[in-house]
Amino acid sequence: MKAVVFKGPYDVAVENVPDPTIEAPLDAIVRITTANICGSDLHPYEGRAPLEAGMVLGHENMGVVEEVGPGVNRIKVGDRVSVPFNLACGTCRNCNDGFTSACLRANPSGDPGAGYGYPNMGGYWGGQAELLRVPWADFNLLELPAGSDFENDFTMLSDIFPTGYHGTELAQVRPGTSVAVFGAGPVGLMAAYSALLRGAYQVFVVDKQTDRLTLAEQLGATPINLADVDPADAILDATDGFGVDCGVEAVGYQAHDAAGEEHPEMVLDNLVKAVRATGHIGVVGVYNPSDPDAATESAKEGRIAFNYGEAFFKGISIASGQCPVKKYNRELRDLIIHGRATPSVIVSHELKLDEAAYAYDNFDKRADGWTKVLLKP
Amino acid sequence: MKAVVFKGPYDVAVENVPDPTIEAPLDAIVRITTANICGSDLHPYEGRAPLEAGMVLGHENMGVVEEVGPGVNRIKVGDRVSVPFNLACGTCRNCNDGFTSACLRANPSGDPGAGYGYPNMGGYWGGQAELLRVPWADFNLLELPAGSDFENDFTMLSDIFPTGYHGTELAQVRPGTSVAVFGAGPVGLMAAYSALLRGAYQVFVVDKQTDRLTLAEQLGATPINLADVDPADAILDATDGFGVDCGVEAVGYQAHDAAGEEHPEMVLDNLVKAVRATGHIGVVGVYNPSDPDAATESAKEGRIAFNYGEAFFKGISIASGQCPVKKYNRELRDLIIHGRATPSVIVSHELKLDEAAYAYDNFDKRADGWTKVLLKP
Amino acid sequence: MKAVVFKGPYDVAVENVPDPTIEAPLDAIVRITTANICGSDLHPYEGRAPLEAGMVLGHENMGVVEEVGPGVNRIKVGDRVSVPFNLACGTCRNCNDGFTSACLRANPSGDPGAGYGYPNMGGYWGGQAELLRVPWADFNLLELPAGSDFENDFTMLSDIFPTGYHGTELAQVRPGTSVAVFGAGPVGLMAAYSALLRGAYQVFVVDKQTDRLTLAEQLGATPINLADVDPADAILDATDGFGVDCGVEAVGYQAHDAAGEEHPEMVLDNLVKAVRATGHIGVVGVYNPSDPDAATESAKEGRIAFNYGEAFFKGISIASGQCPVKKYNRELRDLIIHGRATPSVIVSHELKLDEAAYAYDNFDKRADGWTKVLLKP
Amino acid sequence: MKAVVFKGPYDVAVENVPDPTIEAPLDAIVRITTANICGSDLHPYEGRAPLEAGMVLGHENMGVVEEVGPGVNRIKVGDRVSVPFNLACGTCRNCNDGFTSACLRANPSGDPGAGYGYPNMGGYWGGQAELLRVPWADFNLLELPAGSDFENDFTMLSDIFPTGYHGTELAQVRPGTSVAVFGAGPVGLMAAYSALLRGAYQVFVVDKQTDRLTLAEQLGATPINLADVDPADAILDATDGFGVDCGVEAVGYQAHDAAGEEHPEMVLDNLVKAVRATGHIGVVGVYNPSDPDAATESAKEGRIAFNYGEAFFKGISIASGQCPVKKYNRELRDLIIHGRATPSVIVSHELKLDEAAYAYDNFDKRADGWTKVLLKP
Repeated sequence: MKAVVFKGPYDVAVENVPDPTIEAPLDAIVRITTANICGSDLHPYEGRAPLEAGMVLGHENMGVVEEVGPGVNRIKVGDRVSVPFNLACGTCRNCNDGFTSACLRANPSGDPGAGYGYPNMGGYWGGQAELLRVPWADFNLLELPAGSDFENDFTMLSDIFPTGYHGTELAQVRPGTSVAVFGAGPVGLMAAYSALLRGAYQVFVVDKQTDRLTLAEQLGATPINLADVDPADAILDATDGFGVDCGVEAVGYQAHDAAGEEHPEMVLDNLVKAVRATGHIGVVGVYNPSDPDAATESAKEGRIAFNYGEAFFKGISIASGQCPVKKYNRELRDLIIHGRATPSVIVSHELKLDEAAYAYDNFDKRADGWTKVLLKP
Repeated sequence: MKAVVFKGPYDVAVENVPDPTIEAPLDAIVRITTANICGSDLHPYEGRAPLEAGMVLGHENMGVVEEVGPGVNRIKVGDRVSVPFNLACGTCRNCNDGFTSACLRANPSGDPGAGYGYPNMGGYWGGQAELLRVPWADFNLLELPAGSDFENDFTMLSDIFPTGYHGTELAQVRPGTSVAVFGAGPVGLMAAYSALLRGAYQVFVVDKQTDRLTLAEQLGATPINLADVDPADAILDATDGFGVDCGVEAVGYQAHDAAGEEHPEMVLDNLVKAVRATGHIGVVGVYNPSDPDAATESAKEGRIAFNYGEAFFKGISIASGQCPVKKYNRELRDLIIHGRATPSVIVSHELKLDEAAYAYDNFDKRADGWTKVLLKP
Repeated sequence: MKAVVFKGPYDVAVENVPDPTIEAPLDAIVRITTANICGSDLHPYEGRAPLEAGMVLGHENMGVVEEVGPGVNRIKVGDRVSVPFNLACGTCRNCNDGFTSACLRANPSGDPGAGYGYPNMGGYWGGQAELLRVPWADFNLLELPAGSDFENDFTMLSDIFPTGYHGTELAQVRPGTSVAVFGAGPVGLMAAYSALLRGAYQVFVVDKQTDRLTLAEQLGATPINLADVDPADAILDATDGFGVDCGVEAVGYQAHDAAGEEHPEMVLDNLVKAVRATGHIGVVGVYNPSDPDAATESAKEGRIAFNYGEAFFKGISIASGQCPVKKYNRELRDLIIHGRATPSVIVSHELKLDEAAYAYDNFDKRADGWTKVLLKP
Repeated sequence: MKAVVFKGPYDVAVENVPDPTIEAPLDAIVRITTANICGSDLHPYEGRAPLEAGMVLGHENMGVVEEVGPGVNRIKVGDRVSVPFNLACGTCRNCNDGFTSACLRANPSGDPGAGYGYPNMGGYWGGQAELLRVPWADFNLLELPAGSDFENDFTMLSDIFPTGYHGTELAQVRPGTSVAVFGAGPVGLMAAYSALLRGAYQVFVVDKQTDRLTLAEQLGATPINLADVDPADAILDATDGFGVDCGVEAVGYQAHDAAGEEHPEMVLDNLVKAVRATGHIGVVGVYNPSDPDAATESAKEGRIAFNYGEAFFKGISIASGQCPVKKYNRELRDLIIHGRATPSVIVSHELKLDEAAYAYDNFDKRADGWTKVLLKP
C-alpha cells in the first residue's frame, strides 16, 4: 500500500510499504478514506520529538472496515468508522475508568497511553496510508452512518474535535460561563467551538495569526491578537477586572511571544492572570516530562516556572492531559449527524495522499490560510 | 478585654484592648471559649508575612453569642457557635457559589477573600481574645449544641478540620482510593483523617518529624519519614509502581528538605511523581503570588518551577486554594456529634490566653510534641 | 397602589391596596416594571388550589429598587432587579446548600419553601402590582443592567426560564443527548429552549395545542402532537427503539389526554416508556401531596400510579421539584446580555396592569396564541 | 460436573450436567470456589419469576480461571477472579458509559442487561456448580490476589456488596449525611455497611426480623423494628422532624407489613415520608414492569401507587435500578485487601454444593439466623 513515511526531520515521502495484516484475534484492518495532518505530527517532523525513519505517520484516521480478526464480534466488514487517536485495550483499569488516553496495556513500553504513528506511543503505524491496523477493534472503533455524508466533519472525531472539547471539559465550561482559549490552531478553534456548543456566553480566542483569528470570529468567538495587546489585560478589561470563568490552554510548551521567542511558561502565566478567582483551567496543549531542546535547563527537565503562587491564591484548578477520545466521540458524532455541529468549517485543504510532503511543508510553516489539512488516500 | 496582640516579629503579648462593638446591623459579638493557634499565624509571627503592630491575632475561633445587631434574624444571644476563618458577606457571586473563601465584598482591598487577624484579609481583629466581632453573623456562624461537650473537637471546625477535608475534596478522594498526604502538621493530619473518613483504603503521610508521624500512624495512616527514604519512591514501591490515586499538599511554599533547606517546588515535584497517571492533587498548603523573602528571583515572583511537564503527561489535575469552611463544617459537626469523628485527637496543649507568648514560641519552634495548641480565654 | 387582587374563583380585579412598607431591616421595596402571569397562577384562579380573597397575585416579577431597609448592604436604591419566585432567607441549611426552593425559615407555616402570592407559601403579597416588598433583599435580588434593554427577556428570569432549565438539569441534559419534553406551555418551551442551549442534538416536544407546537418548532425542537400519534411510540420510532436520553415533565398532575380527560399518571407513564434504559427524567410540572379535587381516591392522596416497575427495570432516575431560581438566574442573565439567549420569543401579549382580568380569562382558556402574558404596571 | 439445577417451584437438586466449554474466542471457564445464594434466586424458586426446569442457578460467583479462549488477552489461566453478576460485552454504548447492568448485546432477547442463571437475562447457566462459562472474560472478570485469603469477603464482590453500595450511590450518601435503609436482608445490610464506609453520621435500618436487626446494630447502624413502631415516624422523631438526607430501598415489590400482607407501595411511601425535602432515594430492591401474581390489577401492570405527589413537593430524587458491578468492585476489593472492609460479617452459613436444596429451603423460609449462605463446590 501507499503510505506517508517519515524519512527524517523535514522529510516525509509517500512510499510503498507492506499492507498491514490481522496480527491478533481482536484486530481490524481499516481502509482509510480521510487522514488528517495534526499539529502534533509537526513535533517529530521538526525533529523536536524522537521518530525513527520508516515510520508511517498519522493518528487522525477514518475509513471503512476491510477485514476483522476472529475475536471481533461487534464491528463488521463494511462498517464506516472513526478511529480514535488513542489506542486502548478496553479492559485495563484506566480503560474501565474511561481514560483510554492512559491505557495500561496497549503501549509495550509500559507507559500509560498508546497511539498511532509514534515510537513512544507503542510503535503502531499511522493512518496516513491506504490501510490501518486497529487493535481491539470492537472497543476502539466508533461506527458512523454508511456512505460519505459528513466525511469532513466526521474526520474531526478522531482527535481535534474531542481534544478541543476535552479542553472545555477540563476547564469546566458550562452554560452561562465566559471562556478564554489561548491558541487558535485547529485544537484551539475546536475548543472555542465546543465552548459555544456547551453554552458559554462569551469566548475569547488569543493568537497572533490573523487568518486564524478571523476564523475564530466566524465561529462566534471574540478574537484577541497578542501582537497588538497584552491578552490577559485585554480579557481583564472586558470582564470588569474579574477575569473569565474558564481558560483553555491550546498551545503547549512551544509557545512563542509576538517577537517569535519561545517561552514555555507564557501561556500558563497568562491564563492564571486572566481566569477569575475560583475559576478553572484546562490544558490540552502539550507539555513534556523532559524537553532536551528547550531554552533553559529548567525547561529541559520539564519544569515550567509559571506563577503557581497566584493560581493557589486565586483558588484556580488546573486539569491537564491528552483527550480520552471515546469519552466524547459518540455525542459529538450525534451532534454532527443532526446538523448541530459542523467542525469541518476549519478545513482549509483537501489533498491527495501523494501531496503529503507539500502539505507537511506548508502546514509546518503555518502558511497563510493553512488551518487544517485532510489527506484523501 | 484581654487579647493576644502582635508587637513585631517573634513578639506577641496579651494586653488590654477596647471591647469590640456592633458596627453594622448584621454584626454579632461572640464571647470566645476556645481559640487555636494556627500554622499560618506563624507566617506573620516570623515576619514572613506583613502584619502591623497592634493587630489582635487568631482566626480559629468558637464561643457563645453575646450580642447581635438589629438585622440579625437567625442567630440568637446565647447560641454556641463556631466561627469559620473565612469572613464572608453571603450575597456576592462567590458566596452564592459556595466560595466563601473568595468573598468579593468582605475585604475592603477588593481582593477576593477576607478573614480575621490579617491586615491583607480585611484588617478584622482576630479571636485570640475574650470577644470577637463577627460581621454578617447569620451567614457566617455555625450553631453548635449548647453546653461544653465536644469543645476540643468543635474548635477544629473553624479551620483545620475543614481545611484538611478540603484537601481531600480537591484531590477527589473517594471510597477505595489510595492517598498520599505531604505534611504531618495539623492540616496534614486532618487531611489524612479526612481521607480515611471518606473511605480511602490506604493513606500515606510524609513528614520528617517523628512525633507527628507517630500521630499519623495512630490515626490509621502509613507514615513515611523523608529523612529516611525518598518519599515518592517509597510510595511508588508500595503501589506496584503506579502511584497513589490522590495527593494532598499540606506543606506550602516553605517546604524544607531533610537537611533543612527551603525548596518551594519540592512537594509538588514529589506529588507529581507519586500520584498515578489520571490522578488528582489537592493543594491546601499555602503558596503566594509573591514572596519577597524567597531564595530565588523566580520564587520571589510566586513562580514555582515544578515538573508540570510530567503532570501534563500523566494527565494529573491540580486543584488549589483556601478552604471555604462553610462548604463542609455542618457535615463535620454532625460527624462529631454522633461520635464518628474526633479531631481533638491531635490537640497537644490547652493553655490560658495569658500563656499565648509561651505557646507561640514553642509552636513556632516545632518543639517536640507541640502539635496543636488551644487557648482558653 | 394598584394591584391584581384575587376575589374568588375565576374572578380577579385591579384594585387600590395599601403600599407595601419596609417591615424588617433586610427588606426592599421594588417598583414593578414587568410582572408575568404564570400557569401556576391558574391553579388558584380555577379554585383548584386554596387562595383567600384579597390576596395580591403574581410571582414572576422584576423592577427597580425604590427603598431599602437599614440592614440591606449590597442592593441599592435605583438598582434594576429580577425577583426570583422563591423567597428565601439565605442563611438556613437549605439556602446554604443552594435549595432556595426549600428555604426553612421564610415560610411561617414551617413547610420548606416560600414565595409570593400564595397563602401556603408564606402569605407574601404578589407582584402583579405597582410595588412589591422583598424580604432578605441582598440575598434574593439579582442585579440587571440599568435601563430597559432586554426587559422581556429578563422578565423570564424570575421563574419560567430557570424552571425550564431546571427541568433539563434534573434530566441531566448535556451536549450530545436527545431529549423529550412533555408539555409545550411556557415552562415546556423554556425547557426545550434550554435543552438546545445545553447542546442536545435533538429535542422532541409533545403537546396537543398546535400553536404551541409551532412555537416549539421555531425554537428548533421536533414537535409531536399527541392528538395524532402515541407520543412515546413516536419517540421510540425516531430513536431506533431505544428512546431518548433525557425526559422533562412540564405538565403536572392535571395532564389531559387528547380527549380532554384528566390522567395524573399519563405523562410519567409516557416518559418512562420514551426514555432509554439508564436515562433520566426531570419533573418540573407540579404534583401535590394531596389533591382533593382529583378524579380517584388514590390521586386525592397524592398517589400517582405510574409504571414505576418499568422505571426500575430500565434503571431510570426521576428527579423532581420546584426550581431554586438563584441556582441558575445569573448564568441565564449573562446569556441574555451577550445575545446568546432570547427567551422573550415566547411572549405573546404585553398588557397593562388594568387589563389583568381580561388576560387571566384568555390565558386560562388557553385561547389560541395566548402563550405568555406580561403585565406592565 | 455437579451443579444446582432448577426442577420446579420449591425444588432444586444437585445433578450431573455437561461441563461448559469455550464457545467463543473471548470466553473463559472458571472453576468455582464459592457461589452464594441470593435473595433474587428465591423469586424463581418461589415460582414468582419464570424459570425453566433444567437451568443451572446462581449469579454470585468466584473462582479460578481454568481455560481461556484464543481472543482472551488479559486474564490468564490460574487467575483468581470475581465474576460480576452482570454479564456484559464491554463495547456497546451502555458498557462504554459504565452501565454493564444494561449491556445492549449480551442478552439475545434484545432487552438491556444480561446475567447468569435466568432465562430472561440471556439464558446463561449459573455458577452454583463446579464450573462456569464467562463470556467476554477480559472485560467481565475482576482479578483477586492469588490464594485463599479473604475468600468469604471477596465472594460478596459479585453482587451484594456492590449492590448495597450502589444503593448508597443512587441515594447520594456522602460524609456527614444521615441515611435510612429499608430492608435488613443481605443487600440492606451491605447498604448500611456501605453508608457507614462512605462517612454517614447515622444510619437507620428498618426491618421486622430481629436477628437481622441485631446484625445491623453490630455493623454500627440504628435498628428500627417496623413491628414495634411506624418506621417513618420513628425516623422523623429522631431527626427533629426533618427526616434523613438519604434513603435506600432494599426490599422491592414483595414488601410485607408487620402483619405479613404484601404492599408494593409500602416502602416507597415510607421513604418519601422519612427523607427530608431536597433529599435522595436510591432503589435497589427489585420492581418489575409487570407482576402477574400481584394482588391488584394496577400492580400486575407494574404500577406502584406511592405518594409521588409528596416526593415532588419535597423535591426528592428517586434513582433506581440494578447495580453495574464493575463500577464499584475494584475499589471494594481494595478496601477488603487493606482490611478496611469485611463484608463477610453477614455470612451465616458455609455449605457444600450438595447441601443446596437444604440451603434454599431454609433461606427461603427466612429461618432464624439464615442471613447469607455460601456454597463451596
